[in-house]
Amino acid sequence: MVDAELPRFADADSLITAVVQDAQTGDVLMVAHMNRAAWQATLDTGYAVFYSRSRGRLWKKGEQSGHVQRVREIRIDCDGDAVLLQVDQTGAACHEGYASCFYRRFEGGDWITVGSPLVDPRSVYKSG
Amino acid sequence: MVDAELPRFADADSLITAVVQDAQTGDVLMVAHMNRAAWQATLDTGYAVFYSRSRGRLWKKGEQSGHVQRVREIRIDCDGDAVLLQVDQTGAACHEGYASCFYRRFEGGDWITVGSPLVDPRSVYKSG
Repeated sequence: MVDAELPRFADADSLITAVVQDAQTGDVLMVAHMNRAAWQATLDTGYAVFYSRSRGRLWKKGEQSGHVQRVREIRIDCDGDAVLLQVDQTGAACHEGYASCFYRRFEGGDWITVGSPLVDPRSVYKSG
Repeated sequence: MVDAELPRFADADSLITAVVQDAQTGDVLMVAHMNRAAWQATLDTGYAVFYSRSRGRLWKKGEQSGHVQRVREIRIDCDGDAVLLQVDQTGAACHEGYASCFYRRFEGGDWITVGSPLVDPRSVYKSG
């Protein structure tokens, strides 16, 4: 049985922060959120499942693009309200096609794009 | 002049997520939050400054413990509401004395502590 205390969900609707890191490279890929159901689905399936605040529903990462995240290790922070998922990333973590969502660096007062998209997002995500 | 659009703060009180990563090791050290003032203070000083939700004020990381975070690089995610700080960490990032706040790993249905504290938190943080 999972420790009922951790992660700390105040209620069924409350969210924790999930940081996703590439298990191989150590690159931080994205930040998302989980409610209790997303957390349980991640444990049950071994793949990262989040709660989409914009869509108001569970969201298996890669459900549309195929760019899933196989979870290799999970850590929790001292406060119990943030988890770190170390994953094997299939394809690109970012819906813009970049390996990581953190593809812009602050430099000289502006945001500079680092690297190139791995995939063309138009080929992966259908509109409508 | 900083791009007024990024990070995306809906208003003066709204918060973005800040993930802090050790610039040398790639270890994720902690997750915290920034309001616009914390973001600006981080840029102005070159040290990580957050907004403490529990204390309701700006909080320079290490202001009490001396365990400051010199910012080496800042990245922003595709949505513009999360930043990744790559830092040189002095001492321990975690107020529990561990190098990282993510010092517990999920294993066999339980949370296992990984590694040992670098410092005794009682020697660093005075109560009251």
